[in-house]
Amino acid sequence: MATTIFGLKKLNSWHEVPMADKPKHGGNIYKVAKTLKCHPHEIIDFSANTNLVIPKIDFTLTQKQISLYGDPDYKSLYKSIAKRYKLTTTQIALFNGASSAILELFKVLKPKRSYLYTPIYSEYTRAAEHYSQKNIFIDRFQDLYHVPKKNALVVFVNPATPDGKYYDLEKLFKIWMHQKCTIVIDESFLEFTDKPSVRKLISHYKRLYIVHSFTKFYACAGLRVGAIFSHKQNIKTFTLPAWNLSTYDSVYLEHLLKLKQHDILSQSQNHLLYQELRQILKASNLFDKVYKSDANFILTRSDNAPKIAKALLKEKILVRDCRSFDGLDKRYLRFSVKEHPSLHLLKKALHALT
Amino acid sequence: MATTIFGLKKLNSWHEVPMADKPKHGGNIYKVAKTLKCHPHEIIDFSANTNLVIPKIDFTLTQKQISLYGDPDYKSLYKSIAKRYKLTTTQIALFNGASSAILELFKVLKPKRSYLYTPIYSEYTRAAEHYSQKNIFIDRFQDLYHVPKKNALVVFVNPATPDGKYYDLEKLFKIWMHQKCTIVIDESFLEFTDKPSVRKLISHYKRLYIVHSFTKFYACAGLRVGAIFSHKQNIKTFTLPAWNLSTYDSVYLEHLLKLKQHDILSQSQNHLLYQELRQILKASNLFDKVYKSDANFILTRSDNAPKIAKALLKEKILVRDCRSFDGLDKRYLRFSVKEHPSLHLLKKALHALT
Repeated sequence: MATTIFGLKKLNSWHEVPMADKPKHGGNIYKVAKTLKCHPHEIIDFSANTNLVIPKIDFTLTQKQISLYGDPDYKSLYKSIAKRYKLTTTQIALFNGASSAILELFKVLKPKRSYLYTPIYSEYTRAAEHYSQKNIFIDRFQDLYHVPKKNALVVFVNPATPDGKYYDLEKLFKIWMHQKCTIVIDESFLEFTDKPSVRKLISHYKRLYIVHSFTKFYACAGLRVGAIFSHKQNIKTFTLPAWNLSTYDSVYLEHLLKLKQHDILSQSQNHLLYQELRQILKASNLFDKVYKSDANFILTRSDNAPKIAKALLKEKILVRDCRSFDGLDKRYLRFSVKEHPSLHLLKKALHALT
Repeated sequence: MATTIFGLKKLNSWHEVPMADKPKHGGNIYKVAKTLKCHPHEIIDFSANTNLVIPKIDFTLTQKQISLYGDPDYKSLYKSIAKRYKLTTTQIALFNGASSAILELFKVLKPKRSYLYTPIYSEYTRAAEHYSQKNIFIDRFQDLYHVPKKNALVVFVNPATPDGKYYDLEKLFKIWMHQKCTIVIDESFLEFTDKPSVRKLISHYKRLYIVHSFTKFYACAGLRVGAIFSHKQNIKTFTLPAWNLSTYDSVYLEHLLKLKQHDILSQSQNHLLYQELRQILKASNLFDKVYKSDANFILTRSDNAPKIAKALLKEKILVRDCRSFDGLDKRYLRFSVKEHPSLHLLKKALHALT
């Protein structure tokens, strides 16, 4: 009997610690499949915005290799990332996914005042609410050039999400730098475009941090690797647990980064399918706004959005409900670019609603 | 030219943040191999204490599967762990490795006063120094039954490390519970023994947390999965990033946990090789103390330890220098149980030193 072990009685001493914020997920095909009583992979998932071009790589890891401790410094992976993104390895910190990177960034910076340009990922809101003393949400659509207070932190996702717009940040950088802001730019969807990165500024403006997720563009949502690129003196301020990356994940990513044709293939395929998706959404006449995007997803607005999403779900088509993005409400849905057959099914399903 | 982008000048605005504590690693065959100018796998690594029984499992994940988002709740893995360790899924929190688990635990508990029973892993010291207001180090060998102050946090690794001794914790639990301490027990090496776990106490003493690493016993150092087992109300206090585990790692571990014969095979093999290793170390007459261990490694003490370690390294035999364990100095070396051929080479190398 457990109660007799060490002569224990049931104690009710209970120390309270605040409840964790629940992460707000995007589409979860596993939950949805349970509701629909189907297999998760029967769901046509327009909510997940990973690249449709799944790069072909070839490697095996033996169980013996998994059993060993890998290089705790992941030198080989750092070098591949440095090469790919034209950085030095000292300008890179790798984390167990971009979510961890964002949490660590805010933990280290502990900003007095953070300006978040909305709509924005809930990960940034969560981290800011946890570690930042004051948070100000700036509506990108209405008040882009709002001047932040001196020394504040600013967070901007570019291309933005969930609308996918790429912003030329020149004017904003001038404002931010004049205000001596610490600047966080998330470029996780940049590689879907042919637009320039702000990585080149790292050695010139020490208060710049770039958050980069590899899982979107390299179509590897199952890997847990995300990066912060910044001045090497900033990189030293992070506390990383020893061996913070999975051996398999680090080897897998290293192979992905070496692929030659992935950029051009992804950008051209995305461009074509984006046009098709946009055409379908506009032609449906169900939305009063279909946003222009530079990434691999499209934001829509309609007073009937909840009804549309529900009807699509009956057809096993899952779209992204955008209420979890700060600044958006139930009128907003996000559709990811999908292969032609899925787009065709979406078209049919939307047509049935008109 | 980078300097002209956005009309930037080189700015020297620099905000200071404290330097991160550097993790103190154990043996790093990659660094050692560089010094010795050999391949890392030529090193006979007596410093790594993962299980020698590498379980045979058979599964494949396609790139398509890696490309998808997995179940963000890892339900299937949680169920396997609950089954294996006789817990409910609500008593489990999974982290990206035990190091992450330890950091998160201290982050949530923010103890006013922590008692660490030394020698102890540097991960605990690091976390305590980061998050605990006051830290007291108790020498297990000298002062085991020291009575901690009321409401303090106590951390005990059982079997202990780097000596491998299993402690019957009954008397200590009585002291700790009387003092209403929050108790952290690390049982990462428990499965190498046939000794009982304190997991059964979870539902009876709410201030109990058990840290569990799977990588040692299941010989999978390359996976990043570690657990905290505790009362379900404690589990809710942790902040986990969404999708904090690698898909590959979670599937791999799930397969490992289902193996039937791994415990008995590991314990019996470990017992035999432990006896052989102990005999070799004692017979060498190089050590004034060879500690008794219940785990898969043996601690030794000798004034000549640095010389011994250096001489062994020339033979490509790497042992664990124990200075990174609080409470130990350069006299202490740790030898992990290894297969017979490696033990034979160790025997020869030690013999050459006498």
